[in-house]
Amino acid sequence: MKGVSFGSDNHAGAHPDVLAAVVAANDGMAYPYGDDDVTAEAVRLLRQRFGERAEVLFALNGTGANVIGLQALTRSFESIVCAETAHINVDECAAPEKFLGSKLVDVATTGGKLTPQLVESAAWGFGDPHHAQPKVVSIANSTELGTVYSLDEIRALSEWAHAHGMYLHLDGARLANAAVALGVDLGEFGTAAGVDVLTVGGTKNGALGAEAVVVLRPDLGPTMPFIRKQAMQLASKMRFVSAQFVALLTDDLWRRNAEHANAMARRLAAEVAGIPGVTVTDAVEANAVFAVLDREATRTLQEDFPFYVWSEATGQVRWMTSWATTDADVDSFVARIREVASAHPVP
Amino acid sequence: MKGVSFGSDNHAGAHPDVLAAVVAANDGMAYPYGDDDVTAEAVRLLRQRFGERAEVLFALNGTGANVIGLQALTRSFESIVCAETAHINVDECAAPEKFLGSKLVDVATTGGKLTPQLVESAAWGFGDPHHAQPKVVSIANSTELGTVYSLDEIRALSEWAHAHGMYLHLDGARLANAAVALGVDLGEFGTAAGVDVLTVGGTKNGALGAEAVVVLRPDLGPTMPFIRKQAMQLASKMRFVSAQFVALLTDDLWRRNAEHANAMARRLAAEVAGIPGVTVTDAVEANAVFAVLDREATRTLQEDFPFYVWSEATGQVRWMTSWATTDADVDSFVARIREVASAHPVP
Amino acid sequence: MKGVSFGSDNHAGAHPDVLAAVVAANDGMAYPYGDDDVTAEAVRLLRQRFGERAEVLFALNGTGANVIGLQALTRSFESIVCAETAHINVDECAAPEKFLGSKLVDVATTGGKLTPQLVESAAWGFGDPHHAQPKVVSIANSTELGTVYSLDEIRALSEWAHAHGMYLHLDGARLANAAVALGVDLGEFGTAAGVDVLTVGGTKNGALGAEAVVVLRPDLGPTMPFIRKQAMQLASKMRFVSAQFVALLTDDLWRRNAEHANAMARRLAAEVAGIPGVTVTDAVEANAVFAVLDREATRTLQEDFPFYVWSEATGQVRWMTSWATTDADVDSFVARIREVASAHPVP
Amino acid sequence: MKGVSFGSDNHAGAHPDVLAAVVAANDGMAYPYGDDDVTAEAVRLLRQRFGERAEVLFALNGTGANVIGLQALTRSFESIVCAETAHINVDECAAPEKFLGSKLVDVATTGGKLTPQLVESAAWGFGDPHHAQPKVVSIANSTELGTVYSLDEIRALSEWAHAHGMYLHLDGARLANAAVALGVDLGEFGTAAGVDVLTVGGTKNGALGAEAVVVLRPDLGPTMPFIRKQAMQLASKMRFVSAQFVALLTDDLWRRNAEHANAMARRLAAEVAGIPGVTVTDAVEANAVFAVLDREATRTLQEDFPFYVWSEATGQVRWMTSWATTDADVDSFVARIREVASAHPVP
Repeated sequence: MKGVSFGSDNHAGAHPDVLAAVVAANDGMAYPYGDDDVTAEAVRLLRQRFGERAEVLFALNGTGANVIGLQALTRSFESIVCAETAHINVDECAAPEKFLGSKLVDVATTGGKLTPQLVESAAWGFGDPHHAQPKVVSIANSTELGTVYSLDEIRALSEWAHAHGMYLHLDGARLANAAVALGVDLGEFGTAAGVDVLTVGGTKNGALGAEAVVVLRPDLGPTMPFIRKQAMQLASKMRFVSAQFVALLTDDLWRRNAEHANAMARRLAAEVAGIPGVTVTDAVEANAVFAVLDREATRTLQEDFPFYVWSEATGQVRWMTSWATTDADVDSFVARIREVASAHPVP
Repeated sequence: MKGVSFGSDNHAGAHPDVLAAVVAANDGMAYPYGDDDVTAEAVRLLRQRFGERAEVLFALNGTGANVIGLQALTRSFESIVCAETAHINVDECAAPEKFLGSKLVDVATTGGKLTPQLVESAAWGFGDPHHAQPKVVSIANSTELGTVYSLDEIRALSEWAHAHGMYLHLDGARLANAAVALGVDLGEFGTAAGVDVLTVGGTKNGALGAEAVVVLRPDLGPTMPFIRKQAMQLASKMRFVSAQFVALLTDDLWRRNAEHANAMARRLAAEVAGIPGVTVTDAVEANAVFAVLDREATRTLQEDFPFYVWSEATGQVRWMTSWATTDADVDSFVARIREVASAHPVP
Repeated sequence: MKGVSFGSDNHAGAHPDVLAAVVAANDGMAYPYGDDDVTAEAVRLLRQRFGERAEVLFALNGTGANVIGLQALTRSFESIVCAETAHINVDECAAPEKFLGSKLVDVATTGGKLTPQLVESAAWGFGDPHHAQPKVVSIANSTELGTVYSLDEIRALSEWAHAHGMYLHLDGARLANAAVALGVDLGEFGTAAGVDVLTVGGTKNGALGAEAVVVLRPDLGPTMPFIRKQAMQLASKMRFVSAQFVALLTDDLWRRNAEHANAMARRLAAEVAGIPGVTVTDAVEANAVFAVLDREATRTLQEDFPFYVWSEATGQVRWMTSWATTDADVDSFVARIREVASAHPVP
Repeated sequence: MKGVSFGSDNHAGAHPDVLAAVVAANDGMAYPYGDDDVTAEAVRLLRQRFGERAEVLFALNGTGANVIGLQALTRSFESIVCAETAHINVDECAAPEKFLGSKLVDVATTGGKLTPQLVESAAWGFGDPHHAQPKVVSIANSTELGTVYSLDEIRALSEWAHAHGMYLHLDGARLANAAVALGVDLGEFGTAAGVDVLTVGGTKNGALGAEAVVVLRPDLGPTMPFIRKQAMQLASKMRFVSAQFVALLTDDLWRRNAEHANAMARRLAAEVAGIPGVTVTDAVEANAVFAVLDREATRTLQEDFPFYVWSEATGQVRWMTSWATTDADVDSFVARIREVASAHPVP
């Protein structure tokens, strides 16, 4: 890759401490499929946060973790209400539909966030056999648009869901970024917020590739190992997955990584704020900056700094930062934006 | 884990060279999902063996790799003929049925190996809409019973399959063990043998967790990226998966690891051969030894050396070796077997 | 049922000629699963209209027919663009998602009709493995809102679809109503309009329960019998299904039934037009009338004349007519509407 | 069709009384989807037999009815143990696998009948996430081989199943034939025999096309309407399906039809018993006769009397009788067999 990427937080590598933990886990033989000491420790660290009765399962990627969690909550004649922009809706190649056999009901939102009112508009037909039965509200935190649900907003959704016989699922691919944005611990996104199943993302937080599924409904726990296996998400040498979580959950590495990533996004947003021709379009609450700039400017910038156009229609772009983004990376990117934008003023 | 395990080749850790390659891959930012240099190199190394037109995709575990490969070859109204003992049939929690929507037609075998005659007995009803249409013959090499198909045996199956409008799929979770057993390169299990899709197992060959799917029907290639993504097998930080294959395919590490594992199995089989009360039941062609011994002896042995009972009915046990098994491990295990077996003579 | 229903065209029974044909088909023994003379005749009559190369399959209900047709056109990683109000989207309990494993991408419309512009806004991400690949545009004619696509409108959609490597699917549960609205034969909705797969609805047109799937892509024909069987839509005593289509396609019964149904809707719309407190909200192009009236008036009316509230939010109701609705039925309904509405003026 | 068929009981038409009931049901408008008086009466008649808490749903064909019933009992990571010859295993084009996502585990049997011992050999791996969890034992009565389970045999299977946390499913496509063979009422195959879900076949018993699913686990009832709809088995003009069951369950028509069919099979078996070159291979307990005769004789016979070869390997054929088979049909068939067999003596 030429240049520094602002394309995604998965363009970053693994944090050295995570890698060191993986190397350390390679100590002799161990039982596979999670019956090993490293996995036991990783589960313990997550249960410290989410409660002793939490069922914790490690998975191999975000799509897999989401599908496992949603499968715990749905039968095929039930539906899942989510934002139009949800990762499960647009970026998982219909893995949820294929594996669950369920319908996703998507809702247009502002900033990628559902509200009880929006869910209510989409969740209807209860009891009608012709209509897939609304069963799950699924949100992401932080969202795909870089915004963050407050704990109160999540609680409002879970209360609405539970009052309607539904569950609340939380896609936490960037849960760490949301937690530090709110100044709370990961565990506060669990039972206290009324969440029934969530994922905790390791990959974008500095891991090589590791996600956790946390099931907070004890009655659903016993089916989870079968669901994970059938969803092709069970690692044989599990210790190498679990070790990544042990590292992230030790000495608050998850928090330090996320705080850094969020700080870099704020720095970037602040520095481009004054550049003519660049308009930051959304609140920068986590580690993403959405902005509109001239299309020609975008193409020129991309030659040196990889990033994605979010909307061809509006010319909106997404810049993401990660644990690995440095102050210098941001500064050199900003300098280049300033240079290029001045040559391509937005009309 | 107490003691040295003969339970499975996935009880071993990762070979140090593989781990080193993973660490080395953590060099700055990289494009995700396989658009990185490490993945390009891993693909190149596999294409060297399987041909330039091979479509190569890395997957996260063996079940995932099998399902991806089979999905390339089947529609849901088609069926897959396999051995009763096939991993896809008994050890994947119906992941194939769930993801493919297809039927697995299993056949009782000797030594876990299909023959054209056996396939012919199971593949019927061609053209009858009431009957799932036989479309794939699926074999594993080495098999789940530690036996090895020769290239001629594979060719006989692929010829039968192709003559009947069917495909041949090869589950290569232990392909390296089969290759060294036959003294051939991995690539000889490809087009030359008439195989249409195969997997190449990294995990049991010394990786942390990495499998490859090799599609040898160029017409099927274009759908593979979508199939992999929908099957939840696409890693975002792919370089850490690919790096494992680069290591295994460099300096013949795959071969050295497999040769060692097979040699350890032969050593074990040879040394227990003379022990009264222990009967090796199957040809030891790869890295597994199947034996029958007294159930009480089994229980006693398992206290120090983990391994699995293969058949509760017959008291048959499976002992597996890996790249990490040492001469000393075998010798101490044999010494203990001798000790225990003498106390539990088989009637 | 008390009173005359304007609830749906499936509240009507079967036309006497259809019933007579079913009775006549009960003549001795016959080969099952469609290998009988009655089925051959029904296929012949549909091929007269849709072309000799059309693959024609009878199915058991509208959901089944839609799913069979869509399965011919999609793999699970592909998506189907449809109107938000489409029957496949809201009234089939996620049968398409379950059976196809595919995503439905729904679009807000005016009058339940897609346009190339609307499809273009929803069909994106071509070639991106993260995104379910747009493959089918699915429309209904007449639509769920009682509107009718002209042949030109359909052609515009099929041209857009084909230009983007996609197919056009037509849900023809009420195809007869659309045909007579446009003054064309059923067959004009086939290849000439660029439709790739369509269903022809018998049930709402006067049958007991019979639908046809017409596949106009000869390359897709050979898989259809397997798809139908696996979709649980293959009748054993098929002649009793086919006979219904023979009756409908003989002496233009389909046309007479649909013309009558549409005429009754026009009569109803015309007669309520002048009633204060009743507003017809949509063009009455087929056999449905959508209107808004006072909620209390609605509840009172429903006591004598069953019909459904279409939108709880707006108070909109749907009144449907069928081959069995009489002038007298309409007149007595109108009289009652006049009576009730005058007591419940809309503010 | 030329000649009288002994091919299958679905080669027969509908009994006149069934047809009359369908015609009579066509009386004005009615609520669809089962909210009509005819359906209420059909449900009442089945609940008289199976108990007031039975959930009764009508379906469109045998495959659909089986899949609905099995879906009530399984999640996708669970498996279904059945006879190798089961209709769900070999004659439903993998509809169960596709819709349920579950594995069918088939067992070789004598006479198509499972025993607790056979089930025990196939149902293993309880609690192991790698192995699809045995959850349902599925039998057919009468079986696909024309044999009949006694109530005691069924009870033994249900006791075994329940003791292992499993359910018993009964495919009753020919339940009437089994009932009259045992001299019992249909209802005795329900709770008293420990059956959890069964189907009651109308089609082969003299209907046009109608099956019932009877769910005897009240906790499973509430999901059934959604399962049926998603399985594409919900008829809109349901009264025409239900009316068929009203007719069959009135004045014991089901029993008379089945008694006649079984008597015709016994007559056929008795009359061919003495013909040289014809060997009846299985007990004739219901309405099927299995016999072996010379292949050339088979081909010659089939020119006048359609029937199927059951096993190409052994030359075994299946002759089925139905409510519509007459004494004269049997006699003329026997005469022809005698004639042809004498010209083709079995060596």
